[in-house]
Amino acid sequence: MFQIDKAFLGTSFPLGELALSHVRLQDDARFPWIVLIPRVANAVELEDLASGERDVLMEEILRGGEAARAVGLALDRPVEKLNVGQLGNITPQLHVHAIGRRADDPAWPGPAWGHGAAVAYSAQDRAAALDAARLSLGL
Amino acid sequence: MFQIDKAFLGTSFPLGELALSHVRLQDDARFPWIVLIPRVANAVELEDLASGERDVLMEEILRGGEAARAVGLALDRPVEKLNVGQLGNITPQLHVHAIGRRADDPAWPGPAWGHGAAVAYSAQDRAAALDAARLSLGL
Repeated sequence: MFQIDKAFLGTSFPLGELALSHVRLQDDARFPWIVLIPRVANAVELEDLASGERDVLMEEILRGGEAARAVGLALDRPVEKLNVGQLGNITPQLHVHAIGRRADDPAWPGPAWGHGAAVAYSAQDRAAALDAARLSLGL
Repeated sequence: MFQIDKAFLGTSFPLGELALSHVRLQDDARFPWIVLIPRVANAVELEDLASGERDVLMEEILRGGEAARAVGLALDRPVEKLNVGQLGNITPQLHVHAIGRRADDPAWPGPAWGHGAAVAYSAQDRAAALDAARLSLGL
């Protein structure tokens, strides 16, 4: 049975469900950051998905990128480059990050993963980010 | 017209051509590291590919991961986790990394991108890595 790894719960907010993936907003005001978690039990690598599931995931990655762009716009920090990553070195459950980057963000041009400590959203920015992401995703 | 960005030429070795992507081996003995560069002029983000091209890219990412595993085996350092990333913060031309990771590699559990300086392959290991990657990719 599929269950979200508890590691995601304290670091991100649920946005809703796409056809394949549970979608979350990372609680890090430094980067507009969407996390997609395919609802497939025991999946760790992309190869653990069926071919059709991988095609759906690819389209959901694009939607995650659009949502990251929408969050950036809502917070007056338009995204300049998308970064997509599937790592899982710390939390093995298969998940894909779609992160909006800017040349003035604190990790640029390096990766956002593992760069310093997350900065929690203010209540106001969190509400704006969640609204923008859900609207973009149709959730 | 599509041309490989010169930034790839000094840091990696050509492996050959898949249906969509030019494939290279990163010259970094710390990680078995495959780079896929879709032969699509001016592509920067995944959304710059047509939907059918994205599906092909997803399958080529899996083949890149298999090739990274093959390189790890050939060098007696079996891959324990694959990391896939599409960043482009430094070299914008669309490209995807498939990197084999191990808990004893120098960047673990952080990302390989931007971690210290690359360690060039010895001539012997380079030959073994190129052979293993090409055999795995059928190139």
